Amino acid sequence: MLIVQKYGGTSVGNCERINNITQKIIKAKKAGHQVVVVVSAMSGDTDKLVQFIQYFQHTDYPIPNPRESDVVLSSGEQITRALVAIALESQGYKAISLSGKEAGIITDGIHTKARIEQIQTDKIINLLQEDYIVIVAGFQGATTKGATTTLGRGGSDLSAVAIAGAIQADVCEIYTDVDGVYTTDPRIEPQAKKLDKISYEEMLELASMGAKVLLNRSVEMAKKLNVNLITRNSFNDNEGTLITSEENIMEQPIVSGVALDKNQARISISNLNDEPGIAAKIFESLSAHNINVDMIVQTIGRDGKTDLDFTIPKTEIALTQQILKDFSHLYDQIDCDYNIAKVSIVGVGMKSHSGVASSCFSAMAKENINIMMIGTSEIKISMIISDEYAQTAVRALHKTYNLDR
Amino acid sequence: MLIVQKYGGTSVGNCERINNITQKIIKAKKAGHQVVVVVSAMSGDTDKLVQFIQYFQHTDYPIPNPRESDVVLSSGEQITRALVAIALESQGYKAISLSGKEAGIITDGIHTKARIEQIQTDKIINLLQEDYIVIVAGFQGATTKGATTTLGRGGSDLSAVAIAGAIQADVCEIYTDVDGVYTTDPRIEPQAKKLDKISYEEMLELASMGAKVLLNRSVEMAKKLNVNLITRNSFNDNEGTLITSEENIMEQPIVSGVALDKNQARISISNLNDEPGIAAKIFESLSAHNINVDMIVQTIGRDGKTDLDFTIPKTEIALTQQILKDFSHLYDQIDCDYNIAKVSIVGVGMKSHSGVASSCFSAMAKENINIMMIGTSEIKISMIISDEYAQTAVRALHKTYNLDR
Repeated sequence: MLIVQKYGGTSVGNCERINNITQKIIKAKKAGHQVVVVVSAMSGDTDKLVQFIQYFQHTDYPIPNPRESDVVLSSGEQITRALVAIALESQGYKAISLSGKEAGIITDGIHTKARIEQIQTDKIINLLQEDYIVIVAGFQGATTKGATTTLGRGGSDLSAVAIAGAIQADVCEIYTDVDGVYTTDPRIEPQAKKLDKISYEEMLELASMGAKVLLNRSVEMAKKLNVNLITRNSFNDNEGTLITSEENIMEQPIVSGVALDKNQARISISNLNDEPGIAAKIFESLSAHNINVDMIVQTIGRDGKTDLDFTIPKTEIALTQQILKDFSHLYDQIDCDYNIAKVSIVGVGMKSHSGVASSCFSAMAKENINIMMIGTSEIKISMIISDEYAQTAVRALHKTYNLDR
Repeated sequence: MLIVQKYGGTSVGNCERINNITQKIIKAKKAGHQVVVVVSAMSGDTDKLVQFIQYFQHTDYPIPNPRESDVVLSSGEQITRALVAIALESQGYKAISLSGKEAGIITDGIHTKARIEQIQTDKIINLLQEDYIVIVAGFQGATTKGATTTLGRGGSDLSAVAIAGAIQADVCEIYTDVDGVYTTDPRIEPQAKKLDKISYEEMLELASMGAKVLLNRSVEMAKKLNVNLITRNSFNDNEGTLITSEENIMEQPIVSGVALDKNQARISISNLNDEPGIAAKIFESLSAHNINVDMIVQTIGRDGKTDLDFTIPKTEIALTQQILKDFSHLYDQIDCDYNIAKVSIVGVGMKSHSGVASSCFSAMAKENINIMMIGTSEIKISMIISDEYAQTAVRALHKTYNLDR
């Protein structure tokens, strides 16, 4: 098999841990696989580098030179990629490390949040054929002109997935400090079970709602490039969770997981003029300020007036209220409810099963939980409830769909 | 003027200090000069990186992969060179930073102690013409094949001198945490004075004996490339010491400085067979083991026997004694004297003045100090004495040649 393994900052946090992950790398190599390893910087290093850069920010020059910033930011991965190669060689294995640029990761020129445009795979492929274990610095690439770039948050995962796609690896293993993807947050429901498999689509819905094993950007790229992702724990030998396409999952449960999001607030606009295009103008205006509106409910108009409810991230409340002032001649009143939670069930099996919504609402009713807003997609049902019932709701849903079995 | 400035690890040890040195850079730029800046890693960073590498040393693989080690070792300078550029730009100056490779520093392939073979200056020259302050990572270069190399101890000074020579800079300023070169160590003689000027030759003699402002490797390259070196203090605005060719120094004092070296030991071989070629064989054998023999005195032979005395670094005593066992059939006895000091006076003026040796020996006699060995060159007189008199000797010589004036 051709395997890409990616190790995050805690997995390479010091020399002992680097030695520890080499055992996993060597195990794969000994099993006869070809192995490419992508590494992050030592945990804490990138934060320290960000602080250095921020020191030089001031009002006249608020953005430190992004080209130079990327030189600073990419230095942490240069250290770890070479140390992993040294550690492997000191145990008698052929290993070589490459910068993102040397590995052929070509990006656009948007420094500090570059996008991968292309991967020139010849160097990696040749080295694998010469029996090398190839270590690549994550989080970084280079423009066609050779300037070093970095890929923004979660960039090392992205490097790994993109390389796995480009060299058509059989699997891309993402090592973190948790065992995989769970049916729900084990801190809320101790009966939560680790999933063996989950589809890209389900993972995207779960990740966007708090299961922070992988950023959506990486899952989306894995889906696009058809890369089999496995999230595993670098501190044990457990199996992890395979994230793959629906077709690869034989038994599709109706519900795969329950997600909870407590970072939303609800804005309610009362007695808004019920004319075509007014809601559109409001949402356009919010979008222009990069405010991410999630769920929207509009009541049926009566007497030329309507009520409009929607949810936004709590961090955007002040800005949202200010923007809505521009529309104050069109409505009576605005209310803001901080104390809400969004509970969602996610599962590709919903596509082929009817009655999921009703069983979900029954579960809430049985617990006397009032549902304020409902949103649905093909593979997800989300409900806004009072946040005091958040934990009760998650546990009730987890039980309803037998996720503890 | 075209100026190269080099700042060491303590001068860029944190963000405040980086901001501090930008004031010196900006001052030079504002005065109308073109400025190239060479920087070391933050003090302590390279030591930390060395420790990381050493962690992976073990008996079977005692030398961690040098190619990968150089990737690790060069990372500290990548951070500082970009931060200095960021700091300058945040104050409104055009600045750009380059890796050693980008700056055109081509070395041989001897990783971790590479030698500079060539500097391709076009990039630096073009950027200077576009009015940029150009920052270059010290201590690093690249092979013609593009592999990153490091230059070994004192490598950043070497980068600065080599660049200054290649772009024909008017001056190369080496900033450290001392004011310049002194007539002798101020901890021994409080009356020691900072020298305004000194010749390359004198500096080489002083540096090899303990005035550790600059390693000889850099002074030798400055001499070869005819670079005017100035060592200055990055923490104040004092003038520093100019190190230049003899012709540029109008008034050549007889003695420029007094040096003290307490790291030597004396080996005495008694009653060695006085046959041609025996001493040569002994010194060849020591040289083959990289033992640096400094002063040598052989008595006139009598009855087919001679006494041979020489000095070596104290760290090499055990190895030297072991090597000399191979010759034990040729002599009666070996003695080793740890408690010696080498005191030297250095000055280009000696070339044209007679009587320097006698005034020097008189000064010792006046203090009742016995001279065990004497060595001379065109610009230096060295004496081995008992180390208990080291300080007295230095102060007496300092006074004899009016170095406190």
